[in-house]
Amino acid sequence: MIIVMRADATEEQIQAVESRLRSLDLAANISRGREITVIGAIGDDRKIQSEYLETLPGVERVIRVLKPYKIVAREWHHEDSVVPVGDVQIGGRTVQVIAGPCSVETPEQMAAAAAAVHAAGCRLMRGGAFKPRTSPYTFQGLGEKGLEYLMHAAKLQGLPVVTELMDVRQLEMFLRYGVDVIQIGTRNMQNFDLLKEVGRVDRPVILKRGMSATVSEWLMSAEYIAAGGNHNIIFCERGVRSFETAYRNMLDVTAVPVLKRETHLPVIIDPSHAGGKAWMVPALARAAVAAGADGLLVEMHPCPNEAWCDADQALTPQELNVLMDELRGIARVLGRDV
Amino acid sequence: MIIVMRADATEEQIQAVESRLRSLDLAANISRGREITVIGAIGDDRKIQSEYLETLPGVERVIRVLKPYKIVAREWHHEDSVVPVGDVQIGGRTVQVIAGPCSVETPEQMAAAAAAVHAAGCRLMRGGAFKPRTSPYTFQGLGEKGLEYLMHAAKLQGLPVVTELMDVRQLEMFLRYGVDVIQIGTRNMQNFDLLKEVGRVDRPVILKRGMSATVSEWLMSAEYIAAGGNHNIIFCERGVRSFETAYRNMLDVTAVPVLKRETHLPVIIDPSHAGGKAWMVPALARAAVAAGADGLLVEMHPCPNEAWCDADQALTPQELNVLMDELRGIARVLGRDV
Amino acid sequence: MIIVMRADATEEQIQAVESRLRSLDLAANISRGREITVIGAIGDDRKIQSEYLETLPGVERVIRVLKPYKIVAREWHHEDSVVPVGDVQIGGRTVQVIAGPCSVETPEQMAAAAAAVHAAGCRLMRGGAFKPRTSPYTFQGLGEKGLEYLMHAAKLQGLPVVTELMDVRQLEMFLRYGVDVIQIGTRNMQNFDLLKEVGRVDRPVILKRGMSATVSEWLMSAEYIAAGGNHNIIFCERGVRSFETAYRNMLDVTAVPVLKRETHLPVIIDPSHAGGKAWMVPALARAAVAAGADGLLVEMHPCPNEAWCDADQALTPQELNVLMDELRGIARVLGRDV
Amino acid sequence: MIIVMRADATEEQIQAVESRLRSLDLAANISRGREITVIGAIGDDRKIQSEYLETLPGVERVIRVLKPYKIVAREWHHEDSVVPVGDVQIGGRTVQVIAGPCSVETPEQMAAAAAAVHAAGCRLMRGGAFKPRTSPYTFQGLGEKGLEYLMHAAKLQGLPVVTELMDVRQLEMFLRYGVDVIQIGTRNMQNFDLLKEVGRVDRPVILKRGMSATVSEWLMSAEYIAAGGNHNIIFCERGVRSFETAYRNMLDVTAVPVLKRETHLPVIIDPSHAGGKAWMVPALARAAVAAGADGLLVEMHPCPNEAWCDADQALTPQELNVLMDELRGIARVLGRDV
Repeated sequence: MIIVMRADATEEQIQAVESRLRSLDLAANISRGREITVIGAIGDDRKIQSEYLETLPGVERVIRVLKPYKIVAREWHHEDSVVPVGDVQIGGRTVQVIAGPCSVETPEQMAAAAAAVHAAGCRLMRGGAFKPRTSPYTFQGLGEKGLEYLMHAAKLQGLPVVTELMDVRQLEMFLRYGVDVIQIGTRNMQNFDLLKEVGRVDRPVILKRGMSATVSEWLMSAEYIAAGGNHNIIFCERGVRSFETAYRNMLDVTAVPVLKRETHLPVIIDPSHAGGKAWMVPALARAAVAAGADGLLVEMHPCPNEAWCDADQALTPQELNVLMDELRGIARVLGRDV
Repeated sequence: MIIVMRADATEEQIQAVESRLRSLDLAANISRGREITVIGAIGDDRKIQSEYLETLPGVERVIRVLKPYKIVAREWHHEDSVVPVGDVQIGGRTVQVIAGPCSVETPEQMAAAAAAVHAAGCRLMRGGAFKPRTSPYTFQGLGEKGLEYLMHAAKLQGLPVVTELMDVRQLEMFLRYGVDVIQIGTRNMQNFDLLKEVGRVDRPVILKRGMSATVSEWLMSAEYIAAGGNHNIIFCERGVRSFETAYRNMLDVTAVPVLKRETHLPVIIDPSHAGGKAWMVPALARAAVAAGADGLLVEMHPCPNEAWCDADQALTPQELNVLMDELRGIARVLGRDV
Repeated sequence: MIIVMRADATEEQIQAVESRLRSLDLAANISRGREITVIGAIGDDRKIQSEYLETLPGVERVIRVLKPYKIVAREWHHEDSVVPVGDVQIGGRTVQVIAGPCSVETPEQMAAAAAAVHAAGCRLMRGGAFKPRTSPYTFQGLGEKGLEYLMHAAKLQGLPVVTELMDVRQLEMFLRYGVDVIQIGTRNMQNFDLLKEVGRVDRPVILKRGMSATVSEWLMSAEYIAAGGNHNIIFCERGVRSFETAYRNMLDVTAVPVLKRETHLPVIIDPSHAGGKAWMVPALARAAVAAGADGLLVEMHPCPNEAWCDADQALTPQELNVLMDELRGIARVLGRDV
Repeated sequence: MIIVMRADATEEQIQAVESRLRSLDLAANISRGREITVIGAIGDDRKIQSEYLETLPGVERVIRVLKPYKIVAREWHHEDSVVPVGDVQIGGRTVQVIAGPCSVETPEQMAAAAAAVHAAGCRLMRGGAFKPRTSPYTFQGLGEKGLEYLMHAAKLQGLPVVTELMDVRQLEMFLRYGVDVIQIGTRNMQNFDLLKEVGRVDRPVILKRGMSATVSEWLMSAEYIAAGGNHNIIFCERGVRSFETAYRNMLDVTAVPVLKRETHLPVIIDPSHAGGKAWMVPALARAAVAAGADGLLVEMHPCPNEAWCDADQALTPQELNVLMDELRGIARVLGRDV
């Protein structure tokens, strides 16, 4: 930490900071400039809150220089981590496209969806059994029955499954049904009790970015999971909240290179929730792969017009096929495949 | 709902929308303008997702005109609702200042805090036993022991207690200890399972606004609680995320008049988390009361320099006393007291 | 400036930074921590761009510690500055309410407006002759004729006048008509050529905050004016852009205490453009004064229903009277008057 | 326009709206729902401000359905427009990469830059002679001399030139020097007087998006230029302001498909100002082309370490070459070339 003193800080105030640092087992490097004095704290200050120092008289501000995350940081783990999901690998040479409907509806819909996902050449399937909905009056997901339909349909096509966990009390059920990848949704990125629980299991976790979470907060949420022992974490950018009203969320494509630099873990993109309209999805999906994303989470419905939820953002099976072809071309330019 | 057709929509596309509306038990009012056609859906469309219509060919966009919230809406309940907490009332003539430390630390700290809260003339006390922290490596709250210290100290001063619930599994414990008001924190505003659970109990709930939640989403989260049967809900604005880096959050004081118009429920402000620095708190607290807030949630610590958490945003007991005097003066101008 | 080196920075990289600093006439304080090395630059680095150092190999990031603004900074000028406008003072004990219509329309409208402003006890008048409009197809202001109507009506009531300058080529006209206070609008906060021009004249300037300008950028824009020799600058917060759609802009009331700490210059608030609706104005105006603002810029129209522009945000003369009474009560609590 | 009445609106209030519409030469379509009444205004209401109706008693809100822009709208001009710059075309099959240094420094630097731009296969050159800088104390550009160096160096390589105009008084000089494309910068997107002036000349204009401008405001700013007669407009997205602090601006890649749908004019991306660091540029540039952008505006400096401005975001000539190869591969996938 670096403590910047106010221009009018007195010598005693400077010494008080030094002595507070000593009491925290940190050494102090005092640099007296012509206008202001700056004090560097030397030692591991990750567990020390900067407020302990900011309240001292004469302190202008405190700046952290050590990154607060450790297990997930590339600084301490230079090679890319690959997250294995059965035979499939996320974070390796192959860009993985995880496709499927927003919500599980019927066994027939799921069978058609799984067949289309497989036919398009995707290697993982998504589908929601428990749905976070803004309104209590709209469809909340089929629940356990949805999980059953999803697992059944995916298994028939040999597809590992990604689905969202919203409530700590359902984790046991997810494990029992053999969910392959647990998704933590946007609204739960800082549901710390949920993060701690999935940190204790041996299942890969897709951690979606919070609606307006900074990259640093997002990395810290992953650190919560990792600190529990589960290091198989995949970051998923899905658009953030902005002032723009022409589309639902603003896809933050810059997060891809930034995360790839900060963490060794895989980074994927959800172009469907980002734009919120099916016609935007191909452009955003291509941009994601071109920016270096390790995968995509895409909504596809056998018949979007009749989807029970987010109908306007699902691709048709045919549109998914076209998109997969474009993605293959772009991946090749970057020395990857899809 | 109003369906705006594209300028080049065909007659068949218009009829397809009309027939889709009929299938949803809605009548259609078709208004053919010189440039575009607009179709009004007549009937209660609250449960219908606009995406069902947006995916139809020729549709430009769908606009909702009925408000999606009902129980919490002033439209259907014109008088102000008053939430009773023991003998204290939130939402009435008196502006209630809820004060106390960020986190419960020791029995001695809590006794001193409760005494100071009482001495300042506040009628409710706050304190955190379970703390949502960005980093897994920082103090996470004392847990159940914290609840015990808090309840004990507050009871001695006759103060009802507000404290944050983060995990559905702890609700039973909160009831057992007799927590008077359950706080749902910013990061859990859209933790829908938690909202459903507190909707089933008979305890008042303070619902903090999500980091970047719109007023409409916030009202819908309250509707989740209300739909479960618990109508004793208090909205708490605590600053939202913005582009500004000079302070932690941006206090949205405009939310006060807007919420007072949209809902009959009380609205309070947390000036401590908004600015993030103790020296900003008096200005923000005064602004809140001047704007018409029904109360405040203020951090006060017997000795802020030594607080275990958010040390830089707590007032001293003496600063709280000065603030209370200013608030009394401002409340009087608006025909209220503190 | 503080240069934080990457954890894997080499000794040569550290020395290269030191030698670059020396070439910029800065001394280096090198602090070698267990994990990383931090280099403090000693000397006045205000004119040096941090990018010069950030591009050097091994550098993680560069942090500025000296504030980039000087003339407007309270750090170098501890007492509050008072800006004189004729006999009226902005920034002193009296909170100044500047009222008037959004745009100048007719001599009759202006006469009625000026009379109402005076009758309400306000001491300055506002009105727009040149209007920045989002659309080229809407009313752009009366131009010079508007200036004439405005000056004439205000003079009859003995009110100094505030009006917006949009184009450097009109500055001479503003001086010729005797405009008392020149307003630089939100969209021109970083129109640096315009700032330089008003920095050269002897007329007080109200500098509105840009739509999404940080406090620091805003202070730098004021520094542009001050650097030209004109130190009579008044900051005006008018709401910033946010994700919220329930109101036009989000009034940033926290900017008041923050600016009062950073600068010695007066700070006023425009509650009319912030909320965008007349019914929000009284709450926001009261909040502003309670937070410590030195004044308000309020839209009032003799007959809002017929205003040519922003009809929905103007108060009636009667509403302004009621508001002035409330503001007097709040100012008194803070030891001020209105 | 659609006028949504409040649930408690009276019959007279409804009739008052109808009669106000008639006075504005609009017909009314009244749709009485079970809960609320909705009134559709029939006719061209583009010049009518919605506030005229929002202030009427009983009105809840007014919604515009006609798009406010016309000349730039794809609705009225279905084919893509191609903007010719000498022999080069922007908006056609070829993706145009406009490269060059942030600011013009010396004749030698410009000669080296122009040679590198040409060698990389780019067909247009950029460079700033007049620089908008946040601080009055940093380098403001060489001014007219810079224009001279830029034009000279580019001509030798046969490259048309793009450079920023900040002040209406310099337009004549730009024309005199033969600037090929006039850039309107982010801070001037709503400098309406400047827009009107460039609307009167016959030179193509690159209109950068304002720091937090909505797509709709941006289209309206283009409409200002177009309304003056100059239809050769190119939109340039360069990152918007967000809550994220890990990078300078957030590149809004979604704006590409959205703009391509709303307007027939070309859309390019500036990946350099978006991320603010050279190491982010290739990822963002690839994403832009993959999303369908018609071109890029990229900073390249013969020796970034020594650039006088924005040193940390310029590519080296070698990095530009590598990037161009990647872009060629991606463009090919989309049936385009670079």
